[in-house]
Amino acid sequence: MYDRLKGFRDFYPDEMSARREVIDTVEGAAARYGFREIDTPTLEATELYTDKSGDEIVDQLYNFTDKGGREVTLTPELTPTVARMVVARQQALSKPIKWYSTRPFWRYEQVQQGRFREFYQTNVDIFGSSEPAADAEILAFAADALIDLGLTGEDFEFRVSHRDLLGGLLDAFDAEVDTEAAIRAVDKSAKIDDEEYYRLLEDAGLTVDQAATFDELLSTDDLDDLVDFAETDRVADAVANLEAVLGAADDFGVREFCDVSLETARGLDYYTGVVFECFDSTGEVSRSVFGGGRYDDLIESFGGQSTPAVGVAPGHATLQLLCERAGVWPEEAPSTDYYVLSVGDTRAVAADIARDLRERGHIVESDVADRSFGAQMGYADSINAETVVIVGEQDLENDEVTLKEMASGDQTTAPVGEFPGDSERPTYEDWR
Amino acid sequence: MYDRLKGFRDFYPDEMSARREVIDTVEGAAARYGFREIDTPTLEATELYTDKSGDEIVDQLYNFTDKGGREVTLTPELTPTVARMVVARQQALSKPIKWYSTRPFWRYEQVQQGRFREFYQTNVDIFGSSEPAADAEILAFAADALIDLGLTGEDFEFRVSHRDLLGGLLDAFDAEVDTEAAIRAVDKSAKIDDEEYYRLLEDAGLTVDQAATFDELLSTDDLDDLVDFAETDRVADAVANLEAVLGAADDFGVREFCDVSLETARGLDYYTGVVFECFDSTGEVSRSVFGGGRYDDLIESFGGQSTPAVGVAPGHATLQLLCERAGVWPEEAPSTDYYVLSVGDTRAVAADIARDLRERGHIVESDVADRSFGAQMGYADSINAETVVIVGEQDLENDEVTLKEMASGDQTTAPVGEFPGDSERPTYEDWR
Repeated sequence: MYDRLKGFRDFYPDEMSARREVIDTVEGAAARYGFREIDTPTLEATELYTDKSGDEIVDQLYNFTDKGGREVTLTPELTPTVARMVVARQQALSKPIKWYSTRPFWRYEQVQQGRFREFYQTNVDIFGSSEPAADAEILAFAADALIDLGLTGEDFEFRVSHRDLLGGLLDAFDAEVDTEAAIRAVDKSAKIDDEEYYRLLEDAGLTVDQAATFDELLSTDDLDDLVDFAETDRVADAVANLEAVLGAADDFGVREFCDVSLETARGLDYYTGVVFECFDSTGEVSRSVFGGGRYDDLIESFGGQSTPAVGVAPGHATLQLLCERAGVWPEEAPSTDYYVLSVGDTRAVAADIARDLRERGHIVESDVADRSFGAQMGYADSINAETVVIVGEQDLENDEVTLKEMASGDQTTAPVGEFPGDSERPTYEDWR
Repeated sequence: MYDRLKGFRDFYPDEMSARREVIDTVEGAAARYGFREIDTPTLEATELYTDKSGDEIVDQLYNFTDKGGREVTLTPELTPTVARMVVARQQALSKPIKWYSTRPFWRYEQVQQGRFREFYQTNVDIFGSSEPAADAEILAFAADALIDLGLTGEDFEFRVSHRDLLGGLLDAFDAEVDTEAAIRAVDKSAKIDDEEYYRLLEDAGLTVDQAATFDELLSTDDLDDLVDFAETDRVADAVANLEAVLGAADDFGVREFCDVSLETARGLDYYTGVVFECFDSTGEVSRSVFGGGRYDDLIESFGGQSTPAVGVAPGHATLQLLCERAGVWPEEAPSTDYYVLSVGDTRAVAADIARDLRERGHIVESDVADRSFGAQMGYADSINAETVVIVGEQDLENDEVTLKEMASGDQTTAPVGEFPGDSERPTYEDWR
């Protein structure tokens, strides 16, 4: 007997049916905003990651040398791939480019609750607009997807921050600050104690007093405090941009889900403007559910023209934790419209009936294992068949079939020549 | 600028929309027969393949050592994975097990028309029935999928053979025959000249005369000839099984698509009974489009209880070649229900209207790039918007919005307070 690899999952039908419903719901929300589906390779040249990404990601790559001697990597995230694709057809694609896709990604990291080595995300991105409306549309898609899943404003919140506001504040201190290191410290601040947080800020170049001031600034309720502190256009512009995005989110009807939370910094280095993370409002799911933000410099760094971009990537493992916590994860069970039961030499008639019902778009199973009446009825029950159409030899002698409604156990007969008839969804009710 | 890897593909939205329609159609046909979706890992332990598969596959694996020292492989096919999954939950799963999934697989091989290193298949399998009805249901699903795609009996044919019939015939010769080698020779016979075919049969243990007799037997129109030649129960049973599968295919309404073609042997060693391949009836697509068959011994060879199995795996690259040849490949273009155009300070009203229309399930884009009227109209045209809802400052002063039907260019106005109103799909027609 063989085992599957650690950190990888087999999805059997019951779990998959729930998962498919969630993926379809998230993708459906994206499609209604006019995002278009794309599909992308599982492998990329390793240099696509080693040239740009932080060491943390590179250490976690599933990378190897292929049989032709190429250095290749199982894609750990979608962004470098879509950047490559945008650059490759920069002239031909009409802007804004709005893409989505759902697929697995791979990182060799420690397996824990809601974190696997093979994990699934729906990436949703807009390329070619620097306007606050684009950031807000990403927030609106994310909120719609969660609401369509059955979640409410009691269940989730978007903690919104701004990279350039953080960068601008750090820049306003009289110190040589490693901005990326300081922002990584902010990103970690919720998971580490104050002592370590301050130590990381000091490592990034702030004095203890500056670190304390910075920490205090990040928790202000009034963004004007930041403008007053920094007295720079950069901070003033960043505050104005953050407020404009929240204003546009109000137009989109999703402002109510957004809290300004400057400590929410996002780990990845490539963000440039608004960033946000979705959290479980009850705190029961303690990790960020997913996140996103603006990354205006990435396309250019991949050799393209300057192309502003903003996106979000709901991860399906943490989304499942949130849905389960809120009691809205779909039922993990098969559904079947009809089971056409045949016993004795009635297979041809049963096959005709099954075919007629399938042509009406229904899910219809019939016997493919030459089993007894009882075994077939048990199977029909196990697949949650709503109606069993019994085609027995005795029935056929009477030119009849029997319809059994499984929920109630009620049954009736219908003339075999008239079934399934004109009804799009013939049931017990039509023939009793 | 970075390149994608050779043999891998980027699917941009236009191509993807056609591809998604085809995948949905194929999966929809499987779902209507009660096949249930599963999902499976991209990586498996390499031994899952090296223990069982022919050398040909092993040479083409994308295999490597992961950061934990495990020998792992990018799955080259689904069958070993589903065999592993069936064995893992053998007792819990109610039989027959009917599964489908669509996903990529990987083989390091020469890239050619309709053959890539990353290729997509929809695998459809039944486990737990040795009955001819199961083989026939697989044929019926495959035929339904092709018909749902718009193909007809003029476009495709299923060439049906039987592994044990071939094996039984070879066994009936007075010779020490390497059955697997001889069957691989049959599988290659259409692609090589007679001289090489005979040489391969001789290598497998037949004399020249026996090879000629065997070749002649395979092209008979009358299966009774084979029974008469062999005079063994094995051949008589195999012929009876093949005829029973064709009889069941008749019940399912798909006998007309099946031709007995004993030369169709399928390359893989694990088949045991009926095998078949789908071909383009016009011959313009010269390769097999896809194939399938019965593999009753595989689950046991993976450490499970004896579990008969039959399946098929339409490959989407060759399916695309067939659909394109027959002129039924879906149009590669975006479709959009509404573009809500806003100019001036009308964003909030436009966002409300867009939201209302999205809540009715429509695909609705609106401006996220603060562009001019003309630029927005050009974009609306590029995404094939059916209706443009113009929310201009002048319109709003008159408490109106303008509806423009893009196909005709006709336009009319609607009171802003009454739009979109009660219609599920409000158009120009409703308000002119």
